[in-house]
Amino acid sequence: MMLDRRVNEYLDSHRDESVRSLVEFLRIPSIANNSADGSCRKAVDWLRRTLEGLGFTVEELPPRDRPMVLAQRIINPAAPTLLIYNHYDVQPPGELDKWTTPPFEPDVRDGFVYARGASDDKGQLMAHLMALEAWDKTVGLPVNVKMLIEGEEEVGSPHLKDVLEAHASRLAADAAVVSDGGWHDDDTPTITQALRGLVYVEITFHGPTADLHSGIHGGAVVNPINALAACVAAMHDENGRVTLEGFYDDVDEVEPAILRQWESLRFDESQYARELGVDSLAGGEKGLPVLIRRWARPTLDCNGICGGYTGEGSKTVIPSHATAKISTRLVARQDDNKIVESIKRFVASHTPAGIRSTVEVFAHSPAVVLSHNTLAMKTASDAVAEAFGKTPKLIRCGASVPVTGLLQSMGLDVILLDLGLPGDAWHSPNERFSLEQLFGGARASAAMIQNMADMAR
Amino acid sequence: MMLDRRVNEYLDSHRDESVRSLVEFLRIPSIANNSADGSCRKAVDWLRRTLEGLGFTVEELPPRDRPMVLAQRIINPAAPTLLIYNHYDVQPPGELDKWTTPPFEPDVRDGFVYARGASDDKGQLMAHLMALEAWDKTVGLPVNVKMLIEGEEEVGSPHLKDVLEAHASRLAADAAVVSDGGWHDDDTPTITQALRGLVYVEITFHGPTADLHSGIHGGAVVNPINALAACVAAMHDENGRVTLEGFYDDVDEVEPAILRQWESLRFDESQYARELGVDSLAGGEKGLPVLIRRWARPTLDCNGICGGYTGEGSKTVIPSHATAKISTRLVARQDDNKIVESIKRFVASHTPAGIRSTVEVFAHSPAVVLSHNTLAMKTASDAVAEAFGKTPKLIRCGASVPVTGLLQSMGLDVILLDLGLPGDAWHSPNERFSLEQLFGGARASAAMIQNMADMAR
Repeated sequence: MMLDRRVNEYLDSHRDESVRSLVEFLRIPSIANNSADGSCRKAVDWLRRTLEGLGFTVEELPPRDRPMVLAQRIINPAAPTLLIYNHYDVQPPGELDKWTTPPFEPDVRDGFVYARGASDDKGQLMAHLMALEAWDKTVGLPVNVKMLIEGEEEVGSPHLKDVLEAHASRLAADAAVVSDGGWHDDDTPTITQALRGLVYVEITFHGPTADLHSGIHGGAVVNPINALAACVAAMHDENGRVTLEGFYDDVDEVEPAILRQWESLRFDESQYARELGVDSLAGGEKGLPVLIRRWARPTLDCNGICGGYTGEGSKTVIPSHATAKISTRLVARQDDNKIVESIKRFVASHTPAGIRSTVEVFAHSPAVVLSHNTLAMKTASDAVAEAFGKTPKLIRCGASVPVTGLLQSMGLDVILLDLGLPGDAWHSPNERFSLEQLFGGARASAAMIQNMADMAR
Repeated sequence: MMLDRRVNEYLDSHRDESVRSLVEFLRIPSIANNSADGSCRKAVDWLRRTLEGLGFTVEELPPRDRPMVLAQRIINPAAPTLLIYNHYDVQPPGELDKWTTPPFEPDVRDGFVYARGASDDKGQLMAHLMALEAWDKTVGLPVNVKMLIEGEEEVGSPHLKDVLEAHASRLAADAAVVSDGGWHDDDTPTITQALRGLVYVEITFHGPTADLHSGIHGGAVVNPINALAACVAAMHDENGRVTLEGFYDDVDEVEPAILRQWESLRFDESQYARELGVDSLAGGEKGLPVLIRRWARPTLDCNGICGGYTGEGSKTVIPSHATAKISTRLVARQDDNKIVESIKRFVASHTPAGIRSTVEVFAHSPAVVLSHNTLAMKTASDAVAEAFGKTPKLIRCGASVPVTGLLQSMGLDVILLDLGLPGDAWHSPNERFSLEQLFGGARASAAMIQNMADMAR
């Protein structure tokens, strides 16, 4: 059935208010790692005011400094229940001088809102809030809705698993919508059917007690940076394959039916390379197509490295230590626990005499593959088709959204209703969100609520 | 001849004033890279006041923000002339929380003065100033003295060569003393007979235009950190030898007579390892003794590396670029210009598709080997023997003191009269200088002046 006319009209006539409200939300620099500055608290207060205004009961779940928000509106215990997941925390802004307008002073121009968190994930959250408001202010909400809004997604969701397990019974729902991803291209609505898993560790190589003069002592002691560089370099072979023991165990081939859908997608490698500003797409395993490498193969990247003198000019030191942050992306049935152990063994066996190494594990979660024949998937697919005028295609995403796998493992029927676009610059300077996607996303969310209500009749 | 009694007595009776004066000088945080904060200017003003007080004419040579100080006192154009070199710039303090007392609040305890620059090189400069004052305030200076005090030694002396060449005729002297090194152990006076050269470069690997999400794009693009780590790692082979083309050309074997002197030195490898806080001295080339590796073999160290997210916790980025500071230490007849070219070729050939690399050269100078049979060497050796009560041994130093080679190439008879001790923690937290070395160094400097005057009679 089509989306109720009154709901649709409400959405159309309240676009300006919605954009203003999103801008207000984006002004809050809710970086999870900076929770001590009170910004996460401000974001939670903003969410509480907004959701209580829509009749929701709002609770805060751990951790205290950047809590998970659980908001519920139960209209009738017998009615279907929709669980919506988003996160209010955002990435650090990175290099400020690369932003055209400051990351936390949202700027609306040319049909986009530019700000850190615009697309990842406050804009996508806002689309759902708009749908809830439109139903609430017109016909009245026809299903029960639970919103789960996390504050630690960008730092690997360290408390998510424990919190979800502790509150599992209260999260029961007939379908769970996760909106924290993007389309494959600007014109093709897509639904994401698989996500990669993540293992994120920090490796530190400790050498001499203090920084040493590299002239006086050079040649005597092992340099922690040189040793760490050798360890990181050894993680790949000359064909770009990861050398961790057992790394490719449980990596399944992609089914031909799925592969055929991918081949029908518009994907111009040289345009993609141009967008990223590289002259060659030579990452990952040699000899495989780019989309396979991003969606269906595991990868390993060094996300940060630091050691010795890193200021202007020169300083001749052998540093006392050096650190590398390493993440792997996992696919199919790869076991994240096994990969963590494999990394630890690899580092131990690549720690030379004269160096002491440590491995700190920040996060680990397996890949998620969602079934593509569920009722929830059909409901979402129809809603997206109605909102954007095209039947969505099934794609994958190389990123990790840990909540998806956790909700799935709790027995929930999860769907990924993503609203980002390829040019949204996630985790980069000049992150943005398209207003068309905001308005279309609100329609899709409202239509999904309608479809769930209709099915229960 | 023995040092004039009046000079000696003046030195003995003015120890407290001299320590106070050194403390005052050490309070000035004259880090060359921070010259914009005015501290280098303050250090120059302090030197000007002090030297003008001793009857010297003081000039400032380029560069303007951290000038080279040239001070002269010509008592008689026919008298012998001694040139003394030191530097007033100091290393950055490094990790502040590892200092027992703050680096620029000098603390005198247990016979040492603790501060950044205490031993490298303000304390050694002070020993010469004390000798000049003692002569000036008693008998009167018996030789001409020129002081050359640099402000860029810790950043590779970028202007030194040009300035020395521009003022070569005014630097003419019968002997040049460079005091910017240390003894081999606390009880054995030594004179340094060779120094390693230095090539210092910064390598940057540029990848995508902006930082990318490592989940979404991981496997598509080459990660600049991973590529840089591979490049740095490839600079050594599994035997610790440097793989740069031609790197070991012109590396001479050490003469047996010199080797025998080194074998007579007290050097306990396990105690040295304990002092540095490492469980193994596995740096440099496998199979060579530690002193040979430090004094007579070239080495390569990464002095700093930086890329991606280096803050607390995790951020899943593929960074747009990564940077490594690399220095090599050169020995014997190795050609620093050839090494620079070899590094550039190496980096170019280790830059993978998808990466653009740059190499910036910060400094390069060849090794210095001083003849051990000159008159200046004899003069200095006798002065050290008188001041410290033991005939000094000839050693080498793995560090670079670029001025030494430059003065030598200008035809000057250069000697290295070093006053530091192994525990002085150069370039590290808790740098210190022994008051005994300060007082003994002042006697040695005064005695060298006496010896030069005596020889001219």
